[in-house]
Amino acid sequence: MTPLLLTPGPLTTDPAVRRAMLDDWGSRDPAFIALTAELRRRLLDVANGGETHVAVPIQGSGTYALEAAAGTLLGADDRLLVLINGAYGERMAAIATRLGRAVETLRWDENEPVDATVVAARLAADPAITHVALVHVETTTGLLNPLEEVARVVADAGRLLIVDAMASFGALPIDLSTLPVAAILASSNKCLEGTPGLGFALIDRAVLEGCAGQSASMSLDLHAQWRGFEANGQWRFTPPVQVVAALVEALRRLEAEGGSTARLARYTANLATLLRGTDALGLDLYLDRPFQAPIIATFRSPDRFDFTTFYDALAAAGFVIYPGKLTKAESFRIGCIGAIGPADFDRLVTAMRSALAAATQG
Amino acid sequence: MTPLLLTPGPLTTDPAVRRAMLDDWGSRDPAFIALTAELRRRLLDVANGGETHVAVPIQGSGTYALEAAAGTLLGADDRLLVLINGAYGERMAAIATRLGRAVETLRWDENEPVDATVVAARLAADPAITHVALVHVETTTGLLNPLEEVARVVADAGRLLIVDAMASFGALPIDLSTLPVAAILASSNKCLEGTPGLGFALIDRAVLEGCAGQSASMSLDLHAQWRGFEANGQWRFTPPVQVVAALVEALRRLEAEGGSTARLARYTANLATLLRGTDALGLDLYLDRPFQAPIIATFRSPDRFDFTTFYDALAAAGFVIYPGKLTKAESFRIGCIGAIGPADFDRLVTAMRSALAAATQG
Repeated sequence: MTPLLLTPGPLTTDPAVRRAMLDDWGSRDPAFIALTAELRRRLLDVANGGETHVAVPIQGSGTYALEAAAGTLLGADDRLLVLINGAYGERMAAIATRLGRAVETLRWDENEPVDATVVAARLAADPAITHVALVHVETTTGLLNPLEEVARVVADAGRLLIVDAMASFGALPIDLSTLPVAAILASSNKCLEGTPGLGFALIDRAVLEGCAGQSASMSLDLHAQWRGFEANGQWRFTPPVQVVAALVEALRRLEAEGGSTARLARYTANLATLLRGTDALGLDLYLDRPFQAPIIATFRSPDRFDFTTFYDALAAAGFVIYPGKLTKAESFRIGCIGAIGPADFDRLVTAMRSALAAATQG
Repeated sequence: MTPLLLTPGPLTTDPAVRRAMLDDWGSRDPAFIALTAELRRRLLDVANGGETHVAVPIQGSGTYALEAAAGTLLGADDRLLVLINGAYGERMAAIATRLGRAVETLRWDENEPVDATVVAARLAADPAITHVALVHVETTTGLLNPLEEVARVVADAGRLLIVDAMASFGALPIDLSTLPVAAILASSNKCLEGTPGLGFALIDRAVLEGCAGQSASMSLDLHAQWRGFEANGQWRFTPPVQVVAALVEALRRLEAEGGSTARLARYTANLATLLRGTDALGLDLYLDRPFQAPIIATFRSPDRFDFTTFYDALAAAGFVIYPGKLTKAESFRIGCIGAIGPADFDRLVTAMRSALAAATQG
């Protein structure tokens, strides 16, 4: 039996998505060129970006897309302010620093959302900052950062916003027709419920047009990747054709489900079911509930808790969960995303009861 | 009907390889850690590299692996000599140049193999060169370069050899226990007959140990990727789990077929069947036959030849071929690799007869 993956991705996908990988595709054949065009159109549609942005899928993982965005969008004279309240904010700063770009940071505790007023003050005080990077949902904790407020203050200050929407894209509302965002990055295998192997960027067309030649990486050059698609509809380098086919099927299923609104409702019901159960079990949610996104929930480890025993007991019951990633507290995480519903979480809570007993008996 | 892909990859895979993609995997679960360990062991086994080299798979395409090797192995004071007789040699030089590394080139015509004596002379004349890059089989034409001779002269000169074995790995003989090669790069979707989405490097362990911190890219840092695998058996960033599963299945099938020797024999029979047919059709093989690898064959376009008509007629008959990539002559290419056999080429030749008639009637 394949277990249910209650993780931040790769996650449980629908069997129809996996069956879409059963064909071979010639990557330069017209049929695959059409599939790529559908992929790019559907990615834009998810965020209502067709009028303003272009979709640039890129081979690899979500981290590759983040690095590609940093390398492509930031020029030698630019300066990036990274807003950090978790490991993925730290990663963005580390990526850009290693690429040799000038990086500033603003930090909050892992249980506190980014404060847009602090961002506004920093931008007013430091005119050398040209770009700001925000993690929409910090998978470290599951915290939802205030994307709209941050986007407004960044736009009001005349700077460009880069959003790591890895954990939110496809479920939480993002409307690029009204939200001032230069680039938004995500991957195939989270809320879109595709299989892993692709990252992608939705980039403001006017911004991207000014980025030719800025990337020192040929592989991760989003401008060249975009020009390649525009030139002949093909990928510059061999694409993971089955992963592309799976993602297109996943995007068709997202539309059939009712789009991001319906998906968010399902994930919200998943989280509610989970939290009813964990409340009954006496488990302590790490975040204050207003900051908790319905993506992944972090729980503080109970006293005398053995994670491996807990993990193995849940795995034996058919559920794969995730270790914690907090810097200051022992914890574990349970994802709410993927092709799973509230009934799965009812079963999970039942399994957690005995797993918890086994894991805390020492 | 899915057509047969007579291309340099993605290519036709066995249905069992594609069915291996029907499961979900937690990327940090023990089952997937075991799968990754099997992948790394089997990749080394293909080239008999277990005693000397380490296997470092990396998310993305083969080009990503080439860029990762250039960025990881070449330090700021190093100088790379790229041996070029086709588009993939040119690409390696372009990748390293863009990364800011010092690059020298030696060029031959597209129908001439690299000459090891010329390489030896250049290395003797230029002591600043630290690394040499060779494309084993140039997919531009299908030409086989003399890997062993080049490896000997590079080793005799005390320099390090980087081999793009994208089109040869898994079929042509490569024995890392005797061949002095610092790093060999290939991908999942060529002679290994897996699905696309992974590149990999087999790197001399002692060489790689000296490369910490040299890569400006976090995503494409082969040293950090290797240390990640060694630390906990996991991928640093989300791996394409289904592509990994497919590649492991493909490697098991390679072993069951009889290893690289048996695979080379099948591809050689494929090419022989193809060339008997194309000789009978009066088509002109671009390369002199001793230089032709049994991987992909380039044919000069006949007089009054319309490639699109030819391509479409073959596609309608169930065969996807490839356009030419020569700089100096009109051509098309037909791949011999993938989960296909001589009987498929008999059928192809029959289809080519009528396709050729249609494509040259204008």
